[in-house]
Amino acid sequence: MTRRPALTVVGATGGAGSVMLQILSQHADVWGEVRLVASARSAGRKLLVRGEECEVLALSEEALDGADVVVFLAPDEIAAHWAPVAAAKGAVVVDSSAAFRMDPDVPLVVPELNPHAVRMRPRGIVASPHPTTLAMIVTVGALHAEFCLSELVLSTYQAVSGEGQAGVEALRRQISLVAGTGLGTSPGDVRRAVGDDLGPFAAPVALNVVPWAGELAEDGWSSQELGLRDELRKLLDLPRLPVAATCVRVPVVTTHSVSVHARFENEVDVARAHEILATAPGVVLFDDPAAGEFPTPADVVGTDPTWVGRVRSSPDDPRVLELFVCGDNLRKGTALNAAHIAELAAREFTAR
Amino acid sequence: MTRRPALTVVGATGGAGSVMLQILSQHADVWGEVRLVASARSAGRKLLVRGEECEVLALSEEALDGADVVVFLAPDEIAAHWAPVAAAKGAVVVDSSAAFRMDPDVPLVVPELNPHAVRMRPRGIVASPHPTTLAMIVTVGALHAEFCLSELVLSTYQAVSGEGQAGVEALRRQISLVAGTGLGTSPGDVRRAVGDDLGPFAAPVALNVVPWAGELAEDGWSSQELGLRDELRKLLDLPRLPVAATCVRVPVVTTHSVSVHARFENEVDVARAHEILATAPGVVLFDDPAAGEFPTPADVVGTDPTWVGRVRSSPDDPRVLELFVCGDNLRKGTALNAAHIAELAAREFTAR
Ligand SMILES: NC(=O)c1ccc[n+]([C@@H]2O[C@H](COP(=O)([O-])OP(=O)(O)OC[C@H]3O[C@@H](n4cnc5c(N)ncnc54)[C@H](OP(=O)(O)O)[C@@H]3O)[C@@H](O)[C@H]2O)c1
Ligand SMILES: NC(=O)c1ccc[n+]([C@@H]2O[C@H](COP(=O)([O-])OP(=O)(O)OC[C@H]3O[C@@H](n4cnc5c(N)ncnc54)[C@H](OP(=O)(O)O)[C@@H]3O)[C@@H](O)[C@H]2O)c1
Repeated sequence: MTRRPALTVVGATGGAGSVMLQILSQHADVWGEVRLVASARSAGRKLLVRGEECEVLALSEEALDGADVVVFLAPDEIAAHWAPVAAAKGAVVVDSSAAFRMDPDVPLVVPELNPHAVRMRPRGIVASPHPTTLAMIVTVGALHAEFCLSELVLSTYQAVSGEGQAGVEALRRQISLVAGTGLGTSPGDVRRAVGDDLGPFAAPVALNVVPWAGELAEDGWSSQELGLRDELRKLLDLPRLPVAATCVRVPVVTTHSVSVHARFENEVDVARAHEILATAPGVVLFDDPAAGEFPTPADVVGTDPTWVGRVRSSPDDPRVLELFVCGDNLRKGTALNAAHIAELAAREFTAR
Repeated sequence: MTRRPALTVVGATGGAGSVMLQILSQHADVWGEVRLVASARSAGRKLLVRGEECEVLALSEEALDGADVVVFLAPDEIAAHWAPVAAAKGAVVVDSSAAFRMDPDVPLVVPELNPHAVRMRPRGIVASPHPTTLAMIVTVGALHAEFCLSELVLSTYQAVSGEGQAGVEALRRQISLVAGTGLGTSPGDVRRAVGDDLGPFAAPVALNVVPWAGELAEDGWSSQELGLRDELRKLLDLPRLPVAATCVRVPVVTTHSVSVHARFENEVDVARAHEILATAPGVVLFDDPAAGEFPTPADVVGTDPTWVGRVRSSPDDPRVLELFVCGDNLRKGTALNAAHIAELAAREFTAR
């Protein structure tokens, strides 16, 4: 006899959480009870999911009782503490935070790439990669399967919603301050207009780009730059792949972009790369600059797939491809990948 | 006996032109007569230079008479036609457009790098590089002199004023349309708000990044991407240097940034790179992420030097350095470099 597994979403009130509620309302419904959890601040709020109002519970031991699958869309430190609690209660935990991604006993899963890894979870926890990794991994993984990657050089264009609602609100406040002004052409004028109101960013983000994301890790690298390297190595099972990333925040609300310089063991050609990308699952190839076709965040936001364009090679080195990829950091970048993983886990219950 | 040479500025009314007028008012005054020229649309306008009002002349054969040095800060096709006319009249022409940069009989000059090339001008024309090249060349040139470059991978973050006043106005209009709204999170919402009003860009630039700058060149590369490669090769005298550039427009008014991945023949170390950059002329080293120090356009705009930060190396390859550079595209990127070249040429007259 099969039964529908119970799902608990921790962080249901956030940016990624609200996308998760949409997804739960739109995808084929595999779930029994769906429970919504957030901080005590949100307890008692009512949110719409699967066409019904559902009351938000404050995160606690009891709130995690009875769940078969628990998805965390919450800050790192919340997931670090509560994911093992949920796992100890017997749930399969899907965590989209950074807390467990590099734990050797936690699989890092992208269902298009390594769906079977979901079952290999000694701690009961499955991690979902960072949105920047997710913007590029299916594209790069498909090319790797054919040509064998030997090096990546990456520069990112990361949206402010990567820092949650706080990031979005900071950009909106700052844009209101600079809109309709002549700002952006004199020394310090944007800084003066924005003042100390930087939100979660290290510098003003309106009319600016900020070459910093995360914390200082080591030797001048940021945590997100090294995280991107480490996640790509783990997902591709290439533990020594050279990956040089520069993470930059840009004044885009949602959708991360990455300029990718990929070197392979074998010679590549653009026509074959196009064929591979045109059929890769979850990838949209949008690559005809003569017709104005290349991905931009404004066109990609709100869509499920990741998009790739500007595919080109150079006579300088026939083993190199350049690509520009975009992925909605709240959809495939967070909630959608977590939902895909949770749906894989749900099959274990319905198959029992 | 020495005399002060006469200077004519073509394009005096534009974005780069107005910075040139500031520079002429601020630098040590080496000039005799200064004449301002623009299109017939601007004829009769009065602009302030060196503390005096000066009437703008329409570009014509006569407007170019009598000049010792003519600086073009005007569109490519205007420079292509009129620079040889000015040269035929005996003037030294300094052109900041793309029209002559790759002409083998026209030196491409960055005074910090190759000042003597100003005198080797068989056509009477000296070209100034593209602002993106100028944002990085002094930094990269100084490191090359010590470590010997072998490869560059570049991703740019280019400001809208790179497309002149039209680009600035397009961004300002678009920002007014999206400020104070919830735009940027739903499919197509920014495109709908902006409508067809794209200005000189291939896609909306407010709340967006556009991985396209210039025209379609060959095999999917844009003219600016190949231009950046070709200018760097010419300036560094490394005709086969592998340079893979991805040019991206961002919603910044003024100041281009470049994420630079530089591979050298020799092993590099960050401490030595810091020493070199700290003393390179016209470069500001701003590199202490722990103290929030890295260059951003908002801090660099309006300043003369180019700025470099995020200098780091990786255990993956001890011959590689990562850098993030910013340069004001209207100052060192256009008007200031042209002024520096013009001042070198002026010495030829004062030394006679
Ligand atoms: N957005 C991205 O691009 C991105 C990137 C990487 C990883 N992620 C992961 O996804 C998470 C959510 O991202 P987001 O953009 O949705 O952030 P967000 O908009 O700031 O939402 C944070 C969510 O976590 C909940 N939360 C905060 N403190 C809590 C606590 N003490 N106990 C229980 N719940 C708490 C919040 O509930 P309240 O509303 O009650 O405060 C809210 O539901 C991130 O924290 C991160 O781990 C997101
Ligand atoms: N801005 C950059 O980052 C950048 C980048 C690369 C190269 N450049 C070079 O610098 C030039 C100026 O850039 P900008 O940003 O100052 O552009 P801009 O603001 O659009 O100004 C263009 C200037 O050229 C003049 N002009 C246009 N058509 C003319 C004509 N038919 N005859 C005479 N003058 C004419 C304009 O005069 P009116 O006001 O009378 O129209 C104006 O003074 C560019 O065209 C390019 O060659 C600039």
